Amino acid sequence: MTEHGSRHTTPEPSKLPSFPIAAGAKGAPAERRGARGPYKRSAVTRAAILDAAMAVIIEQGSRSASMREIARRAGVDQSTVLHHFPQKATLLIALMRERDARSDEIFAAARPATIADVPEALLALARSNAGQADIIALYTLLAAESVTADHALEEFFHERLARVRAGFLEGLTALSDAGMLRDGVTPEFASSALLALWEGAQLHWLIDRDGVDVVALLEDFLHLILRSPQT
Amino acid sequence: MTEHGSRHTTPEPSKLPSFPIAAGAKGAPAERRGARGPYKRSAVTRAAILDAAMAVIIEQGSRSASMREIARRAGVDQSTVLHHFPQKATLLIALMRERDARSDEIFAAARPATIADVPEALLALARSNAGQADIIALYTLLAAESVTADHALEEFFHERLARVRAGFLEGLTALSDAGMLRDGVTPEFASSALLALWEGAQLHWLIDRDGVDVVALLEDFLHLILRSPQT
Repeated sequence: MTEHGSRHTTPEPSKLPSFPIAAGAKGAPAERRGARGPYKRSAVTRAAILDAAMAVIIEQGSRSASMREIARRAGVDQSTVLHHFPQKATLLIALMRERDARSDEIFAAARPATIADVPEALLALARSNAGQADIIALYTLLAAESVTADHALEEFFHERLARVRAGFLEGLTALSDAGMLRDGVTPEFASSALLALWEGAQLHWLIDRDGVDVVALLEDFLHLILRSPQT
Repeated sequence: MTEHGSRHTTPEPSKLPSFPIAAGAKGAPAERRGARGPYKRSAVTRAAILDAAMAVIIEQGSRSASMREIARRAGVDQSTVLHHFPQKATLLIALMRERDARSDEIFAAARPATIADVPEALLALARSNAGQADIIALYTLLAAESVTADHALEEFFHERLARVRAGFLEGLTALSDAGMLRDGVTPEFASSALLALWEGAQLHWLIDRDGVDVVALLEDFLHLILRSPQT
């Protein structure tokens, strides 16, 4: 039984929008925490390879980054890299999925208890990104590379954007259904604009760390599209 | 004498904000149109080299793109490329400046006659970009590359962003002074958000040409920040 007459309805926490980013992706990484023994050793090696790959790609771009250089930087044989990631594309996709899975964890950790807390949980994710310039730079670079000729991540980013946009639309639709969007603001516009603003602002922040405040910009945007609590 | 009492004041056209992108840049390219004889031949060669460079960089990224391959693609000797662009950085900067100069021309060609026409001129620029996917992809790629380690364009994009943000702030301040911004919308937020939204939306459009409409998104955003004409 939903409470009619109250503008901010409060769905059960399990029904709150989660803005899933990695969740629902095909072949998303399995949970790796708490593994032991040989499996744990393998997971440590895998993580070292991903860290090395991130460093090499940020320096050289994903097209120039060689599996040999990644192996050297990770301190393992090239065969070990190929055991974990048979192709460079597999490795690039793994890098992006780890990042997306981490974003989902951060959003969940912000624990929105009512739908009114959802905007604050989005800002918590933006605040966390502000401490992760390297991974944001990697993401931005790979997304931009992905739209150039015959790139290994073209399909991945196309599928990812559709999924993330759908998740944001679902989230903003829930806010709209709860009467939280200002008159005239549609969930379609609000979700597309929020995501585009976020990514554009992150690029600008990478270019000018002192001059651009992503969190403040998102906060002001949310203020613009959300009905103010007093209204 | 400005008209007080009228909400939409109408500055003289020469005083209208122009959202300059290339204008004011250090070492912006001189006007090349109408040149003749040897100078014209040189300009044609230069343009052919820039076209070839764009194609090679979109395929390989700017780090891997070699001056030799660019020369081959342009059908000239490598020495000719080096005559026009002694370093790869010079060539990359020239590519970006040509794009920015073209943007300024398109905005000017939209000929805003009163300040109320300025938003429409911005949309005209966005519409023109929609027919220029290759140059938008090049710009997006180089901007993303520029924030990675020791990139030749780091300083260029840092200086460019500061300049473009200042131009947008000046433009939105003029709209604000003319009473065109909604209550509570500051020129600082409006200009930063407009630019970030625009670039983020362009990236999303490059990833999904059919699913993302940059012009519609900007139009809705302008609708959100501008006072509606009836008010």
